[in-house]
Amino acid sequence: MIVVMRSNCSDENIEHVLTFLKNQGLTGHPSVGAERTIIGVLGSVGPSGAPGGLGGINPTLGENLESLPGVESVLRVSKPYKLASREFHPEDTIVDVPTACVSEGVVHIGGNAVIMMAGPCTVETEKQLMTTAEAVRKEGAVILRGGAFKPSTSPYGFRGLGEDGLKLLAKARATFGMAVITEVMTPTDVPLVCEYADILQIGTRNMQNYMLLDAVGRTQKPVVLKRGMSATFEEWLLAAEYVLSQGNPNVILCERGIRTFEKATRNTMDISAFPLIERLSHLPIISDPSQGTGRRDLVGPMSLASIAAGTDALLIEVHPNPDEALKDGAQSLTLDQFQSLMPEAQAVARAVGRTFITG
Amino acid sequence: MIVVMRSNCSDENIEHVLTFLKNQGLTGHPSVGAERTIIGVLGSVGPSGAPGGLGGINPTLGENLESLPGVESVLRVSKPYKLASREFHPEDTIVDVPTACVSEGVVHIGGNAVIMMAGPCTVETEKQLMTTAEAVRKEGAVILRGGAFKPSTSPYGFRGLGEDGLKLLAKARATFGMAVITEVMTPTDVPLVCEYADILQIGTRNMQNYMLLDAVGRTQKPVVLKRGMSATFEEWLLAAEYVLSQGNPNVILCERGIRTFEKATRNTMDISAFPLIERLSHLPIISDPSQGTGRRDLVGPMSLASIAAGTDALLIEVHPNPDEALKDGAQSLTLDQFQSLMPEAQAVARAVGRTFITG
Amino acid sequence: MIVVMRSNCSDENIEHVLTFLKNQGLTGHPSVGAERTIIGVLGSVGPSGAPGGLGGINPTLGENLESLPGVESVLRVSKPYKLASREFHPEDTIVDVPTACVSEGVVHIGGNAVIMMAGPCTVETEKQLMTTAEAVRKEGAVILRGGAFKPSTSPYGFRGLGEDGLKLLAKARATFGMAVITEVMTPTDVPLVCEYADILQIGTRNMQNYMLLDAVGRTQKPVVLKRGMSATFEEWLLAAEYVLSQGNPNVILCERGIRTFEKATRNTMDISAFPLIERLSHLPIISDPSQGTGRRDLVGPMSLASIAAGTDALLIEVHPNPDEALKDGAQSLTLDQFQSLMPEAQAVARAVGRTFITG
Amino acid sequence: MIVVMRSNCSDENIEHVLTFLKNQGLTGHPSVGAERTIIGVLGSVGPSGAPGGLGGINPTLGENLESLPGVESVLRVSKPYKLASREFHPEDTIVDVPTACVSEGVVHIGGNAVIMMAGPCTVETEKQLMTTAEAVRKEGAVILRGGAFKPSTSPYGFRGLGEDGLKLLAKARATFGMAVITEVMTPTDVPLVCEYADILQIGTRNMQNYMLLDAVGRTQKPVVLKRGMSATFEEWLLAAEYVLSQGNPNVILCERGIRTFEKATRNTMDISAFPLIERLSHLPIISDPSQGTGRRDLVGPMSLASIAAGTDALLIEVHPNPDEALKDGAQSLTLDQFQSLMPEAQAVARAVGRTFITG
Repeated sequence: MIVVMRSNCSDENIEHVLTFLKNQGLTGHPSVGAERTIIGVLGSVGPSGAPGGLGGINPTLGENLESLPGVESVLRVSKPYKLASREFHPEDTIVDVPTACVSEGVVHIGGNAVIMMAGPCTVETEKQLMTTAEAVRKEGAVILRGGAFKPSTSPYGFRGLGEDGLKLLAKARATFGMAVITEVMTPTDVPLVCEYADILQIGTRNMQNYMLLDAVGRTQKPVVLKRGMSATFEEWLLAAEYVLSQGNPNVILCERGIRTFEKATRNTMDISAFPLIERLSHLPIISDPSQGTGRRDLVGPMSLASIAAGTDALLIEVHPNPDEALKDGAQSLTLDQFQSLMPEAQAVARAVGRTFITG
Repeated sequence: MIVVMRSNCSDENIEHVLTFLKNQGLTGHPSVGAERTIIGVLGSVGPSGAPGGLGGINPTLGENLESLPGVESVLRVSKPYKLASREFHPEDTIVDVPTACVSEGVVHIGGNAVIMMAGPCTVETEKQLMTTAEAVRKEGAVILRGGAFKPSTSPYGFRGLGEDGLKLLAKARATFGMAVITEVMTPTDVPLVCEYADILQIGTRNMQNYMLLDAVGRTQKPVVLKRGMSATFEEWLLAAEYVLSQGNPNVILCERGIRTFEKATRNTMDISAFPLIERLSHLPIISDPSQGTGRRDLVGPMSLASIAAGTDALLIEVHPNPDEALKDGAQSLTLDQFQSLMPEAQAVARAVGRTFITG
Repeated sequence: MIVVMRSNCSDENIEHVLTFLKNQGLTGHPSVGAERTIIGVLGSVGPSGAPGGLGGINPTLGENLESLPGVESVLRVSKPYKLASREFHPEDTIVDVPTACVSEGVVHIGGNAVIMMAGPCTVETEKQLMTTAEAVRKEGAVILRGGAFKPSTSPYGFRGLGEDGLKLLAKARATFGMAVITEVMTPTDVPLVCEYADILQIGTRNMQNYMLLDAVGRTQKPVVLKRGMSATFEEWLLAAEYVLSQGNPNVILCERGIRTFEKATRNTMDISAFPLIERLSHLPIISDPSQGTGRRDLVGPMSLASIAAGTDALLIEVHPNPDEALKDGAQSLTLDQFQSLMPEAQAVARAVGRTFITG
Repeated sequence: MIVVMRSNCSDENIEHVLTFLKNQGLTGHPSVGAERTIIGVLGSVGPSGAPGGLGGINPTLGENLESLPGVESVLRVSKPYKLASREFHPEDTIVDVPTACVSEGVVHIGGNAVIMMAGPCTVETEKQLMTTAEAVRKEGAVILRGGAFKPSTSPYGFRGLGEDGLKLLAKARATFGMAVITEVMTPTDVPLVCEYADILQIGTRNMQNYMLLDAVGRTQKPVVLKRGMSATFEEWLLAAEYVLSQGNPNVILCERGIRTFEKATRNTMDISAFPLIERLSHLPIISDPSQGTGRRDLVGPMSLASIAAGTDALLIEVHPNPDEALKDGAQSLTLDQFQSLMPEAQAVARAVGRTFITG
């Protein structure tokens, strides 16, 4: 942490800062320049395991310093997350998901192979789910998506089948050998969803639902953590840090578009997330172009762009009859469109030196 | 709902839309223009009580229509919220909060009088809370704010004293006669927080935590619902609709700034929320300039601006020693600053024809 | 400027940075911490008069440093603008505008008195302009706004009457004694507009039209510089710096709303601009609630909020018959609405200790 | 255009709207629904050639209607641009650029082949330009980029060599046979830049500099029109409409990132622009990942993503020694990095069924 003093600050101001730091168990190192003085605070990591520069101390220290007289600004040197950072954990994390339809019996997310996760936005009926699962499995998807607990912006919208939906997902898994990813929305549902799901999904609206993050962090299930709709990379990695710091290392990030002023798409996909997160963190990252665009006709191109930029998997909404979907029909691919996408996706994966696991 | 067909669509496309609507129990009325055909769908309100144009039917109908061949776009005519709308409920809602320090024994939020809610961001110690409560009460605050359960962007940050914090708030209430507002973060905590609090606060990160909205909707406690950090007015009112539709009419909206590209302030306060929400909804709306700016030196001016634009109350962070606050010290007023603000706030309230209740 | 090295950088990396700085005529001061090394670069101001830390040298130095091996980030200590900064020029700038209708013969923008600037968005006809000018003057406006050269998002929109519009403005000035503000859109028009206008307006789309900024900077006319629709405070003050550095000290900033995700208003007014710019800069700042909201029914409340937060003037669109305006009718006040606003604006000004000049 | 009346509007309100429309030479067709009345206004295209629904009439008609009593909202049915729209011009536009280094002597932008445009951000010296041009030509770039007139956020920044820079570009063209793209910033410079350049570039800050758009529209030179940093697709296509409506059909759009809340990248590239613009318009679209990210390490992945999503060309900043660049060094590729990128880009182009012209 670096404290930048105002150019016209007094010696008393500087003394005050140094004393304040001392009272926090820290030491400040002033450098007097021609124009102004800066004070370096290079604290060591404290006992709590918090990241450097925080050192087990109050993370609002910077803000408090900023409000002392004569202080112009406080610059943070270290990243506020630790367990999620590439610096702390240089090797890529690979999250393993038991998956019967793959010859090895397990899918590795975060390695060289790209993975396809597909299925309906929401589990509606047994027929809808089984038809979709069969079709996407046939084309090479190895993980089945489908919502049983669904967030809905309107209280009058469909909120999912609940445990009945989970049971249908389990049936599809038993039939087609695919692993299952489904959303969990509240801490008390975590044990129930864990019974049925292979991967827990935390939705964009819950990225900062800290008690939910704590709860999934106390399991060992893989967790797909969607980026909040206006979350910075730093906030996203801090949300991952919640899960990691509870002892669950199996976190997978998911870019699903951010909110901007543009109205022609539901969200603006931030494709730079793929290469940038790879630099900042060791965690796998996947792409949700269905939520990311809200438009079926953009899902294909954005899937290919995600692969070209380095995504570890695609998470795609597919519906046998999107016009009648109870939720998000406009962004669901038809079975035919999904069938066309798969070879294109594989071609782009090969072009960037990656394989594509289809089971 | 209005379906706009493409200018080059075929008669079959139009027939398809009409049949699709019929299968949903609706009737489409085509108007053939020189350039293109539009189809009006003016459905009646259905049995579920959902707002007009939705009529108890699938709210994703519009999206599904949009993906039919030949359809250019679907325009929604009605607002998607009903109970929260000014159209449905033309009279202002006044939320009453029992408050011993006021001669009448109750504070009315949403009427002519402006209210001051003040206190520390987070309850830290008995001394800190009691000192602050005494000081803000002395200046005319009638509701005491203070967090016992606190969201923290970092898992290493201070997350509040929990029930111990609630007990301290209860003690301050007993001592100074102020009503108490405090945050609840998860459905399972609602009964506990209800025991101690007069007003439940839903934080910005939880505006779309639907199970929490359901849970507070099943109580009759006043609920302050903060705007999500990138929520539109429509999404915000839909979140209010969750609480209202569960049977709790005591919803108070709170503008606390939105996320923009500007970095000099923590958030950008959307002051137009005050007059605009008044047009869209009958619910009271209050202002949180502490979160809204993140900077102590802006809290005063933004408080005055909020009153001038029509806020029903201010919610302000005050700390006896902000430099040592465990959370959000940089945006907390000192006791002296709070003392200076109160007469200024009252002067602006008078200038716009409002009173100011100080007990 | 401070160079933060990566925690695992080599001694060669540090040497490379120090050599690089030396080649730029600068000296780096390394501080070796437990975790990492930081290098302070506290250069003096160079001969070009550029702000400290830049010292007449390449302002992209920071970016270049950031791309050297082993460098984590480069933190800028000084502000990139100088002439516009409060630090450089602690006293408020007052811009004087000759105005016949005021007893003193001049209006001071940036002092204690709030000013009303009003008139049509666009000059359409002599009758429209004269009717509006007479009405707003009668209520106390002292400066007349009206566009002769108008930016239009569509090439099919009305682009103004050009010089004929300027002549009408001159006629209104002669008749009612008001000073005139009007927009200039391109460098070659600056001399023409200067002949007729008392204040030049730079529109939001031209905030970074640098050749236009240079051109108005070479005059001594007061310049109202609107904030770009997605400009940060820093970029805005750098645009002001363009004008100031050409020798024209008469710059007035104008907050007119920024672009956000919210669709219910045309823009989101950033009311915090008023108190924040006052801290960052000595320049006057005024408010345009017409452009800032795009909705007539919000202009009144946002005018009052602007005054409460510290604006030096209001710039308001008024039209005798807004339904028939050729441009921006939806955000123009009627003459009656303007008449109602004036005493309210004056009451709020008094409440915050300011006068209101009405001539 | 569709006028939606309030549910409680009076018959007089409806009559007023119909009369208002009649006075504008239009006819309204009311549909009376259970809940509310809507009025269709399906005007024919007027003599001015403006797009349907505007019909040569005032484009602010909608706003004016919206402010009539009893009107809830006005919904626009037609797109506000015409010449730029895919509906008006179903075939792809191909822009031809004479280019000596290509065997055919011309490069076709907007066809099946992807094009590489590369070179320094800014022309600094003859050696820097010639070295870069030679290197990028050798790897297969066929168009040379380089700024002679440069916008700079700070008045103290480098603003380019002006005509001397143009002369150096002409020399590089003569030597290496590449076509030249360079920026023009103000109408009076258009003739000069046209003398030297094969493609005129309009920068992001000038996307709505309408007099500049008019000026380049009066030439027949290809124009690369960068998206404004907070421009919607609609505004961008309306800016293209300015150029097209002046008679220049050779418009090429360029996605270069938009402004969001994210701070880790300079801008957020909106990769969905490539497939979406293809649906909305017949104009070619290219990608600028250097400006779009501001980070050299992201340029490669975002180039590949752009190709996968459908870009017609890449526009990339390359510098022989980025650490010493006078501008934008942090986002410039080294010659080695550029050499690595080219085969990767070609592999992705092949994977999506496109060729790559390298001369």
